[in-house]
Amino acid sequence: MTEPLRLGVAGLGTVGAGVVRIVRTQAELLSARTGRRIEITAVSARDRSKDRGVSLSGYAWEDDPVALARRDDVDIFVELVGGSEGAAKDAIEAAIDSGKDVVTANKALLALHGQALAERAEAAGRAIRYEAAVAGGIPVIKALTEGLAANEITRVMGVMNGTCNYILTRMEQSGLPYEEVFKEADALGYLEADPTLDVGGIDAGHKLAILAAIAFGTQPDFGGIALEGIDRVSIDDIRAAADMGFRIKLLGVAQRTGRGLEQRMQPCLVPAGSPLGQLEGGTNMVVIEGDAVEQVVLRGPGAGMGPTASAVMGDVCDLARGIRLPVFGQPAGSLQPAPRAQSDLPAPYYLRMKLVDKPGALARVAATLGDAGISIDRMRQYGHSEAEAPVLIVTHKATRAAIDTALETLGDTDVVTSAPVALRIESL
Amino acid sequence: MTEPLRLGVAGLGTVGAGVVRIVRTQAELLSARTGRRIEITAVSARDRSKDRGVSLSGYAWEDDPVALARRDDVDIFVELVGGSEGAAKDAIEAAIDSGKDVVTANKALLALHGQALAERAEAAGRAIRYEAAVAGGIPVIKALTEGLAANEITRVMGVMNGTCNYILTRMEQSGLPYEEVFKEADALGYLEADPTLDVGGIDAGHKLAILAAIAFGTQPDFGGIALEGIDRVSIDDIRAAADMGFRIKLLGVAQRTGRGLEQRMQPCLVPAGSPLGQLEGGTNMVVIEGDAVEQVVLRGPGAGMGPTASAVMGDVCDLARGIRLPVFGQPAGSLQPAPRAQSDLPAPYYLRMKLVDKPGALARVAATLGDAGISIDRMRQYGHSEAEAPVLIVTHKATRAAIDTALETLGDTDVVTSAPVALRIESL
Repeated sequence: MTEPLRLGVAGLGTVGAGVVRIVRTQAELLSARTGRRIEITAVSARDRSKDRGVSLSGYAWEDDPVALARRDDVDIFVELVGGSEGAAKDAIEAAIDSGKDVVTANKALLALHGQALAERAEAAGRAIRYEAAVAGGIPVIKALTEGLAANEITRVMGVMNGTCNYILTRMEQSGLPYEEVFKEADALGYLEADPTLDVGGIDAGHKLAILAAIAFGTQPDFGGIALEGIDRVSIDDIRAAADMGFRIKLLGVAQRTGRGLEQRMQPCLVPAGSPLGQLEGGTNMVVIEGDAVEQVVLRGPGAGMGPTASAVMGDVCDLARGIRLPVFGQPAGSLQPAPRAQSDLPAPYYLRMKLVDKPGALARVAATLGDAGISIDRMRQYGHSEAEAPVLIVTHKATRAAIDTALETLGDTDVVTSAPVALRIESL
Repeated sequence: MTEPLRLGVAGLGTVGAGVVRIVRTQAELLSARTGRRIEITAVSARDRSKDRGVSLSGYAWEDDPVALARRDDVDIFVELVGGSEGAAKDAIEAAIDSGKDVVTANKALLALHGQALAERAEAAGRAIRYEAAVAGGIPVIKALTEGLAANEITRVMGVMNGTCNYILTRMEQSGLPYEEVFKEADALGYLEADPTLDVGGIDAGHKLAILAAIAFGTQPDFGGIALEGIDRVSIDDIRAAADMGFRIKLLGVAQRTGRGLEQRMQPCLVPAGSPLGQLEGGTNMVVIEGDAVEQVVLRGPGAGMGPTASAVMGDVCDLARGIRLPVFGQPAGSLQPAPRAQSDLPAPYYLRMKLVDKPGALARVAATLGDAGISIDRMRQYGHSEAEAPVLIVTHKATRAAIDTALETLGDTDVVTSAPVALRIESL
């Protein structure tokens, strides 16, 4: 057996504690599978005295993750600090510069600075691995980068933020409005310190940007994602969708179109009985489509101590076994800038609007949609006691541009009382 | 860029033609991702003149796969001949002995001779890769061996034979009996030359034996699988199951129990709306459960030209990238003989029997089950015009031993007119 592989773990929150636990309890299994003893030599976190439920005895302590990253007795720097700037970035750069491989769960950092970090790591002959950054315990980075490497990937899509999924599921089950369920989730500790990371779709967008880079050989382009959070999804939409056999999910899609690379992360309607529609709570699902493999669907826990630590340690095992690849699957220098393209692929849409309660209003809506080339699949008008009549429409396939045109035209009339809601309908 | 990686492809059926197609059409993509040019230098098949829809120009031809395996201009021997003995085995051994790595889709060979082949390959410092052998295009070998390497795997289960799934689905949809649908499937070319490989559960069993070896660090033990095909599933069972909200699937399960390693491949009832219940036709699903990751579910096409060639070429890309592992994830010499154990974990069961139409028959059945410690969840007696009364029973959780005891006792009475059917109910 060769020399032990020595980890330095920065960040001892839930995931860090999970990593310590696996290294401590599965030492034999890890060395049987990788041929090397894997041990932790040093750790770093903000608060040294905190009880994390795992023993840190035998590990050196560093207050500063950058100092940890530079230690001579560390072979792999495990970054679980988080955040796209500051300590996490500084420490990863220090690790690369001092000849260490890096394993991280940091999606924000890779989505925003992945290209520069990949160039830096590859120039230094070091690896950056990040299975835990996307979809928690699901080995999706590996499936896409390695297992499906012989495919021209045509589409990647997925539900990748458990908090959003929890909120949307809870709204449907409880009938409570968004604001209430948001407060509940906050009280339960499900939300990040900055909750817009979750509910604004930013966290899920970071993950999509990473998947798209690998899938399409492009530089990660978070800024190119058409991003829409769940904070504008109303309980009315959830009820209406359920009524028509749909559920609302924050769904990310990255695909090559005739015009370029389309990336979007937005609330969509999916059939309630479909694999995506059946997803509940913190479960993630990623769909990968390729020219040869057709379609592969991966489902599993998107967060949590065990699943995320499983992904981190899977990366560590790969490095212990000598598995080394360019950060995004092909050399960073060969990644092309993403050719941004708006969605031009037609899809059915769900529209909700409130009309003034007077004759001809509905006819006006139908005519406006027709003028924009949009045909109506189903329409429902609900009973009402006010001066506004809520109307739901499911269209046949239409482009986003046509929908926007129609809604803009309707906004200029006097029949619609508030800004209509338009959500894309995706099926799987 | 380093030297090109040269493939010798033996077997030019559907999958072989798919491999040739990928190498020919995706040369640029493959070299961008692996850093090496991948080319085919020589091929072998039974019939040289057959039109396979792909060009073989520029490739040397060998009539004998063993000769192909020994060629100096081949780095990786791609075995797509099939069969657990004869040409495939001889050629793989010849490839290893002459210093080649091997990529194969041959589940029978690995399930039956995997241990010896792994020892031989590892002694020679060569790799044998076989992603295509299990669940077609789904990168499940990689997920289990690498992505989830830090987990103590607790259970692996799956639906892994598309032909069986097609037959069962078609029976349910058409209402036709097994024999009729079997003939249809045969006419459509869905069956192997020896159809018992499929419908007897043998092919799926081979796949399960491979997964279990990786998951539990044991030598592949096909002989240790409790194997039951779908040929005894009647249209009555399918109808009755559907009536109660279930579907019947040929489901494989491998798990560690208190007594040892339980492996079974048998028709089971699963809830119709569950992910397993929703599987149709040739789609496969594999579920992996581990102590850290909890549960990961992988779904995709289990066969076909594109998906299987995707898996073969995924292995080739790994080798081109220098990814090398022991055949079953840990050195062959460290794999333990599988400690065979029968299922002792209680599960609900579905029972179907026909009773003589006289007073007290049903009471006798209930009493016999009760005596064996089996309690009844649901019971249905169907209307009948004959002297036999069909009865369906869903039990609460019971061990297989208790079920067997009860059915044996019932067989000794005069109330049951034919051998009762007992199928396990699994949920996911």
